Amino acid sequence: MNTWGNKIKISIFGESHGAAIGVVLDGIPSGLPLDMDFIRREMLRRAPGQNSLSTPRKEADEVEILSGVMNSVTTGTPICGIIKNTNTKSKDYNKNLLRPGHADFTGFQKYGDSHDFRGGGHFSGRITAPLVFAGAIAKQLLSQKGISIGSHIKQIYDIKEPSFMDSPLSKELLNEISLKDFPVISDEIGEKMKQAILGASSEKDSVGGIIECAVLGLAAGIGSPFFASLESVISSMMFSIPAVKGIEFGRGFDFTNLKGSVANDPFQTDGEKIFTTTNNNGGINGGISNGMPVLFSVAMKPTPSIAQTQNTVDTEKMENTTIEIKGRHDPCIVQRAAVVVECGTALAVLDSIL
Amino acid sequence: MNTWGNKIKISIFGESHGAAIGVVLDGIPSGLPLDMDFIRREMLRRAPGQNSLSTPRKEADEVEILSGVMNSVTTGTPICGIIKNTNTKSKDYNKNLLRPGHADFTGFQKYGDSHDFRGGGHFSGRITAPLVFAGAIAKQLLSQKGISIGSHIKQIYDIKEPSFMDSPLSKELLNEISLKDFPVISDEIGEKMKQAILGASSEKDSVGGIIECAVLGLAAGIGSPFFASLESVISSMMFSIPAVKGIEFGRGFDFTNLKGSVANDPFQTDGEKIFTTTNNNGGINGGISNGMPVLFSVAMKPTPSIAQTQNTVDTEKMENTTIEIKGRHDPCIVQRAAVVVECGTALAVLDSIL
Amino acid sequence: MNTWGNKIKISIFGESHGAAIGVVLDGIPSGLPLDMDFIRREMLRRAPGQNSLSTPRKEADEVEILSGVMNSVTTGTPICGIIKNTNTKSKDYNKNLLRPGHADFTGFQKYGDSHDFRGGGHFSGRITAPLVFAGAIAKQLLSQKGISIGSHIKQIYDIKEPSFMDSPLSKELLNEISLKDFPVISDEIGEKMKQAILGASSEKDSVGGIIECAVLGLAAGIGSPFFASLESVISSMMFSIPAVKGIEFGRGFDFTNLKGSVANDPFQTDGEKIFTTTNNNGGINGGISNGMPVLFSVAMKPTPSIAQTQNTVDTEKMENTTIEIKGRHDPCIVQRAAVVVECGTALAVLDSIL
Amino acid sequence: MNTWGNKIKISIFGESHGAAIGVVLDGIPSGLPLDMDFIRREMLRRAPGQNSLSTPRKEADEVEILSGVMNSVTTGTPICGIIKNTNTKSKDYNKNLLRPGHADFTGFQKYGDSHDFRGGGHFSGRITAPLVFAGAIAKQLLSQKGISIGSHIKQIYDIKEPSFMDSPLSKELLNEISLKDFPVISDEIGEKMKQAILGASSEKDSVGGIIECAVLGLAAGIGSPFFASLESVISSMMFSIPAVKGIEFGRGFDFTNLKGSVANDPFQTDGEKIFTTTNNNGGINGGISNGMPVLFSVAMKPTPSIAQTQNTVDTEKMENTTIEIKGRHDPCIVQRAAVVVECGTALAVLDSIL
Repeated sequence: MNTWGNKIKISIFGESHGAAIGVVLDGIPSGLPLDMDFIRREMLRRAPGQNSLSTPRKEADEVEILSGVMNSVTTGTPICGIIKNTNTKSKDYNKNLLRPGHADFTGFQKYGDSHDFRGGGHFSGRITAPLVFAGAIAKQLLSQKGISIGSHIKQIYDIKEPSFMDSPLSKELLNEISLKDFPVISDEIGEKMKQAILGASSEKDSVGGIIECAVLGLAAGIGSPFFASLESVISSMMFSIPAVKGIEFGRGFDFTNLKGSVANDPFQTDGEKIFTTTNNNGGINGGISNGMPVLFSVAMKPTPSIAQTQNTVDTEKMENTTIEIKGRHDPCIVQRAAVVVECGTALAVLDSIL
Repeated sequence: MNTWGNKIKISIFGESHGAAIGVVLDGIPSGLPLDMDFIRREMLRRAPGQNSLSTPRKEADEVEILSGVMNSVTTGTPICGIIKNTNTKSKDYNKNLLRPGHADFTGFQKYGDSHDFRGGGHFSGRITAPLVFAGAIAKQLLSQKGISIGSHIKQIYDIKEPSFMDSPLSKELLNEISLKDFPVISDEIGEKMKQAILGASSEKDSVGGIIECAVLGLAAGIGSPFFASLESVISSMMFSIPAVKGIEFGRGFDFTNLKGSVANDPFQTDGEKIFTTTNNNGGINGGISNGMPVLFSVAMKPTPSIAQTQNTVDTEKMENTTIEIKGRHDPCIVQRAAVVVECGTALAVLDSIL
Repeated sequence: MNTWGNKIKISIFGESHGAAIGVVLDGIPSGLPLDMDFIRREMLRRAPGQNSLSTPRKEADEVEILSGVMNSVTTGTPICGIIKNTNTKSKDYNKNLLRPGHADFTGFQKYGDSHDFRGGGHFSGRITAPLVFAGAIAKQLLSQKGISIGSHIKQIYDIKEPSFMDSPLSKELLNEISLKDFPVISDEIGEKMKQAILGASSEKDSVGGIIECAVLGLAAGIGSPFFASLESVISSMMFSIPAVKGIEFGRGFDFTNLKGSVANDPFQTDGEKIFTTTNNNGGINGGISNGMPVLFSVAMKPTPSIAQTQNTVDTEKMENTTIEIKGRHDPCIVQRAAVVVECGTALAVLDSIL
Repeated sequence: MNTWGNKIKISIFGESHGAAIGVVLDGIPSGLPLDMDFIRREMLRRAPGQNSLSTPRKEADEVEILSGVMNSVTTGTPICGIIKNTNTKSKDYNKNLLRPGHADFTGFQKYGDSHDFRGGGHFSGRITAPLVFAGAIAKQLLSQKGISIGSHIKQIYDIKEPSFMDSPLSKELLNEISLKDFPVISDEIGEKMKQAILGASSEKDSVGGIIECAVLGLAAGIGSPFFASLESVISSMMFSIPAVKGIEFGRGFDFTNLKGSVANDPFQTDGEKIFTTTNNNGGINGGISNGMPVLFSVAMKPTPSIAQTQNTVDTEKMENTTIEIKGRHDPCIVQRAAVVVECGTALAVLDSIL
């Protein structure tokens, strides 16, 4: 089902080569003034064609708001935003040749002959654009409540930069990174990451990476034990984003290398507030926020669309064959996905605090 | 909320030191004969006190079925199973001293003075016992449909054994591992893992690890793009399990080290079936099963309860102080959690296929 | 929340005077060929301006399908249909004068100053147009499964015609009624109903009525005991339709006048099938269909918009005053609502059988 | 599914002749002191065997609270309450003879041979006991917020008493009625209703009736347009109660006899508050509370279990035959159902205001 949320409800719709893609976002309180410039900037962070690293395919990605907003202020009723599909080249796609790493095969298994395979159809990364629109609204509401969300690229291929867990973290830093074309803490390391991407591109190949996301200003006590743990809510949203294949909170998989005496975040007080002196748990104990920054990382696989020859199957002939994917594709999706991760997180956090 | 699922509904209830813990499982079709011995064996895999590695605390963990079953066959109506709490020592717990790494602080932040903090209350790992009961039922229903679920410990502290992705995998292997006290592929490596646990224990410390889970026999076409992706559904369940801090599907975080040309799983056909020649994606493309084994790993942090002196806060005096956790605790929870991961997975898979 | 359903999900959005109204319908299987002419006819049955009984306001009500349909066949992904608002006259509405019987007051109570009050905003009966679009698709899917849904006007003001419970009922009859401008069994009685409407209109007044709906071809065994009873699912949908204030299944409120010996529908068999010889229960026992026609009636209140002077409050001055509602309004909404009731029912039945 | 609610979640389980029946109630905030005497009194209002009007079958109906309550105060985690089944006589029931008006046939259609038919199984009216337990907790929480819920029997067979809409209504009156064995405004009319019940009983027959329910103290602005209208939420709960076959809000079906000029409730102000001078709409406009008492009536059919000979089918032989229902049954269920209606309403209102 393409509906998500408990206290908010998000419904995503659309296919890469259909008339339009969009989202219905329900549960946003009335009276929130929307900063349309901010929304546009967030959309632009995700949009293709912004620099040499991404597909030259230009998409206007202009959102038309159909409902739920009057004079740029939310009315409290469902907000529907749509983005028309204008620049589509369906002829690039061959129905019978399964693209490895894509959802062509599973799409046909699930939907049969009526599956809209053109450009990935409903599986297209393009469907994250409405998610960014919805998340940008969520971000504004969270911002009113003192909550900031930001991210950086922690790794591209084998190039890494330090975690938010091991470097100074502030709202200002998150904002600063969000204004960069290539969202990293260290531009020097970012340059190396770009080289790794361009290197892969020149080999007709692709690379993946890791995005680390931070939520600042979230009060302690948000979330639930068990099924609605903050980790459950955030992860269910993150795995909605195409190409995400892993998530870890705080030290995550690195917890295996720590003993309890080091892993446990000791509590401390200044007489007024209680906090932890380390944040290995990424701001969450027992599924509930503890007032420290909520920190998690998501792993994104390399873009499956590559220009190299790959083995595959022709489903009509049921024969082994090869495919060379033409068309306009990103050698790396990670830099464009950072804002998607942030916006998805904003929706997940909003659903938890309302 | 402690209710989970779309096509099935699970409600978990209970506190570590309350009258009973239990679960309501709705959506199981009528006519399923329950193998009570199998359920008991699964419960025993999770139960404490089974060997020198785990807490000497003995829990009967005998499930009483209150509804939904007549003559050992499901009736189609909600199944309620409860486990009475008998062996509880509440005096071991001091309300004012926050245990680092536990949910004491967040529990009080969320629930206030009425929070049942005794033994972790509703946050206790003991609450996973009803999940195993429910999951054991789900496993039997899946088994009827040819679907098997198993797991092994892939890592304890710094001791690792090979992934299911890099070694032969079969239903028989999964079954064999499930019968072991210490669920690993290689008993030799398992012995080293046990030593690591005992070593931590002797230092009054604890260790965590990684459990890898496999779902065999799942047809292609199960799951959904976006919000109800198989990864979303499984991960939301996995992060319900206390101490789980990370999850990755297929290569997961290792995807960052692979280029697209290697990461993509090429399709092949034998003229009848289509499959992939590698399984880096862990059996899932675009959120939907592709017919290959579904493979994922979860990271579990070290048990937070350790006997060492730790820094913490006395919440009554609002002063910094130290705590030494007495009582009966596991130096490692991973070996007992394997069946919890499997049972949670069974519920997630069942919810996706019904 | 404006999302409904378990196995299907419907999200309705839009305001009477916004850019567009619409619906996202998720859960429709792939491969359903859409009969666009049928959809248009259903939309037309609800549309205003069709005859002298309804508002002269003409609305094109042309649905644009944005997603989920390729070459007029459903793809299995969410279907979004929108209807642009073109013929809106916002100047007819005064924000400070509460219209009696309308949701102006409650809208401001819930949404505050940002409430979109123009033309009733999100409360407008116009928002049922997308519901008809979604329901018309559901009807086609149900039709494939041998299920027909139809309705007639059982009462307008004090003019009644016999219930489906007390007259011959067939698929053909339902179809025949659906083709009428004024959907009644007996055109003679229908004529009197029309006179009652025109009479009210000439007095600057309005009237309500009762719509009876029938579901034919629904197999026994659909629905659930308790919370997801067929009555619960249908009624929750019916009370989503503006102006509906009552619902009864089978004899409903008339059950009070029957004794058990008469009310109980005795079972009978022809050796092959089991059926009941009467259908006082309206085809539902214990929340589950029994194979007889599902029959229920909904009561609709008189249109609240009337041209007579009414007492009300000026919310700005907080003073008692009067209002005369100008603009274009129906003296009776019942005849246009019949198709809305049917389409809502189609969605409810579909959610129960999938 | 036997789970209900958005902001609270209720799961009902149990069969008439199983080990126990019960409920899990999630979403009740921590810190609510439970008045166990009040809960017991509410349970007793529903319990059988209280007077000559109802079945002599005695049920202890003692609730055991398993979780979510510590020292009689809610902890904020799921509350599970169970009632053991002790006094069950399964031999009274013959699997092959379908009881007219009951869910025997539909139960077998839905659940097949594994259907627990004993005493109606999960369809039994006895399953409303846990609903009363949950609702009694909800009532206490609502009471803290100044909201009172009460009801009276408006009609038994052809004996009627005035509606709350046409007689003085106060919190005190509701309380006073709730303390009566036979919950009516006028004991004189009540006596006639009892005679009607006893008369039916002496004829081995049964009668139904109408319960009118009132919610006092609910602020304006609660509920939603469309799918989560207050009417939708309340009605979906009401039709979960066995034997309920109709519901109407305010004038309901009587709206058909009113013209808009009379039906519309004019607004008035005293300079501080806005209210309506009549309450035909039963306190709800556009699905949202308007601050007036919320008023609705539910129709209950005659108890289907009667001692008279009835025609039915022997499902084993597939032959027409007759049945005489022995055992212990109520000639009228309405007086016992009043508290069930109130408690269901309390849960519905609570779900809408949290």
